[in-house]
Amino acid sequence: MADFQFLDVRKPDGRPMTLYGLHDIHVDGPIPSPSPTPVDARSQLRWHPVRGEWVAYAAHRQDRTFLPPADFNPLAPTTDPEHPTELPQGRYDMAVFANRFPSLTLSAPDPDPVPGVAARAGVGACEVVVFTQDASASLTDLGDERMALLLRVWADRTERLRLDPRIRHVLPFENRGVEVGVTLHHPHGQIYAYDHVPPVQARAVETLRTHLTQHGRPWLTDFVAEERAAQLRLLRDDGLALSLVPPFARYSYETWVLPTRPAAHLSDLTDDELDALARVLRDALRRLDALFARRMPYLMTVQQAPVNDGEHPEWPLRIEIYPALRAPNKLKYLAGTELGAGVFANDSLPEAKAAELRGVTLEDV
Amino acid sequence: MADFQFLDVRKPDGRPMTLYGLHDIHVDGPIPSPSPTPVDARSQLRWHPVRGEWVAYAAHRQDRTFLPPADFNPLAPTTDPEHPTELPQGRYDMAVFANRFPSLTLSAPDPDPVPGVAARAGVGACEVVVFTQDASASLTDLGDERMALLLRVWADRTERLRLDPRIRHVLPFENRGVEVGVTLHHPHGQIYAYDHVPPVQARAVETLRTHLTQHGRPWLTDFVAEERAAQLRLLRDDGLALSLVPPFARYSYETWVLPTRPAAHLSDLTDDELDALARVLRDALRRLDALFARRMPYLMTVQQAPVNDGEHPEWPLRIEIYPALRAPNKLKYLAGTELGAGVFANDSLPEAKAAELRGVTLEDV
Repeated sequence: MADFQFLDVRKPDGRPMTLYGLHDIHVDGPIPSPSPTPVDARSQLRWHPVRGEWVAYAAHRQDRTFLPPADFNPLAPTTDPEHPTELPQGRYDMAVFANRFPSLTLSAPDPDPVPGVAARAGVGACEVVVFTQDASASLTDLGDERMALLLRVWADRTERLRLDPRIRHVLPFENRGVEVGVTLHHPHGQIYAYDHVPPVQARAVETLRTHLTQHGRPWLTDFVAEERAAQLRLLRDDGLALSLVPPFARYSYETWVLPTRPAAHLSDLTDDELDALARVLRDALRRLDALFARRMPYLMTVQQAPVNDGEHPEWPLRIEIYPALRAPNKLKYLAGTELGAGVFANDSLPEAKAAELRGVTLEDV
Repeated sequence: MADFQFLDVRKPDGRPMTLYGLHDIHVDGPIPSPSPTPVDARSQLRWHPVRGEWVAYAAHRQDRTFLPPADFNPLAPTTDPEHPTELPQGRYDMAVFANRFPSLTLSAPDPDPVPGVAARAGVGACEVVVFTQDASASLTDLGDERMALLLRVWADRTERLRLDPRIRHVLPFENRGVEVGVTLHHPHGQIYAYDHVPPVQARAVETLRTHLTQHGRPWLTDFVAEERAAQLRLLRDDGLALSLVPPFARYSYETWVLPTRPAAHLSDLTDDELDALARVLRDALRRLDALFARRMPYLMTVQQAPVNDGEHPEWPLRIEIYPALRAPNKLKYLAGTELGAGVFANDSLPEAKAAELRGVTLEDV
């Protein structure tokens, strides 16, 4: 794709926003915010001494938007100046702004000491990424070029957030569907930035570095070669990027989309690689939607390496998609074994689910 | 409580069952099973090389019971011999039997090799624990004495399951409510036994042993002393057992119920300690039900130490309750930060939630 454009602006309550576009960006009217009052975000982190992990607290979030009246969409461009939204009128494709009710924020103050627990400021960032001005669209409706733009937006946000030396990890994600608790159906995702390496990524660095040391090459190199040889779980192989149901899938229809060489961050990919990744990602999401002839509810996370802590030659950059449905009308619930022990129980074998996803008919678009 | 009774029987399909009671046990009629055919449980475990954990696969489970017709309850005592359930008619309080559709089983065969992934037999056990013959009751309706019986049943199952030297961990749990995916509303729980130490417990052993080494005393000793001193999060302190919202709660209204001295397994507790734990547990569950004047959906897990691997002086035996509601009509969903990074975001501070739970009015029963 051609280079993208961006425009940095500031909301009346002080929050920064960036508009992104494939073409020249033009804003009509003022930059809005649903409220002119800055949110007093007193995020804190507390240490869980048994699980050995930080827990984020944001008591100020209790009043956040939850199934608002159908006539107000805070992610649509403002049409009524009496009821400003988060987005201005104008020509742009995507918008990113700081969440008005963040779980983590770079300006979090030190909390008052709490007897009996180690507490500290909830330093980090929570951004909202609006994928389109069209409230009724889905990510896959936007076409390959805008999917490629989204990858560049995620890469750009990662690069901007890591400029703060306190940030150690950046996680872009999308929750989609009421089944996974989404309250605003306008197509959007979020980005969380943490001031520590989260448990999932810390564990991955550990296992992947062990593989690199023991085998002399990154895990991804073996993985891609084995999946191409096995031909049991591949959905699409575009040369520079591929999609598959991993052979150790924890969810039915779990799908990974990844470049075929190790990379730590989206910004490490070439333009050709980003474009290939976008095509394969859109193909994967369209397969999930076609599977049960309905928009598949899912969680999608972009798994990048930690930042500001050196090189990550071990890291396999990948987009992991966890579909919420395990059959047309059956949700996967996380229960005793998953949440109480960390052992996922999957009712189906990855090879069978990959065959189903390979077999769906995608209409030309 | 007085000693309990039990009776070991076998179902027509070969599955073992144990009936437990506070009084003499008497069975009327044959021991039933919904089907006379043994289930061919080809469970397997596959290694997730990035997360560094085993994933359980049970493809034979796809057809398991899901929202069956209202007139068939497989957990009620059999009344129509044409439609046998899991339970016989008779005098007993609780029943435990092997799950007909297990995720893990002691008889799992070695799977055929799968290219591209390390797979092995899904060795373990999945048991169903029926809390009462009364389909419409809730655990808290049963009174303190039967709650105390349940603790003994959990202890007895743990002791029996650990007799197999392959078993390394035993996890009793209850999922309650449609909101957490429960398909059978007859009061019941489950027990999973694993042939490896699950990730959650492996991490806990690591953090707790570090504390023991660094401080010269188990973490629980400090924790109980600090909570008693702070008086910010205690719900009830019965001397031998107490309940609280932990200061590092990951869920709103998360509640822990624990003996006040370190213990590895339920079987390590004295009769007095078990009775105290039962009273405090029932009190905690009643508070959660009273909070929003409705049965609180939740996940409850009994966190015991691993088995068959030596002593666990570091271990704080505890029952962890994760309520699914964070407000009267608001579910907590696990989303990007929880499932993609392992960082829980909680909208409320534990001290505030503990005050709410302390403040509910419990009717005398």
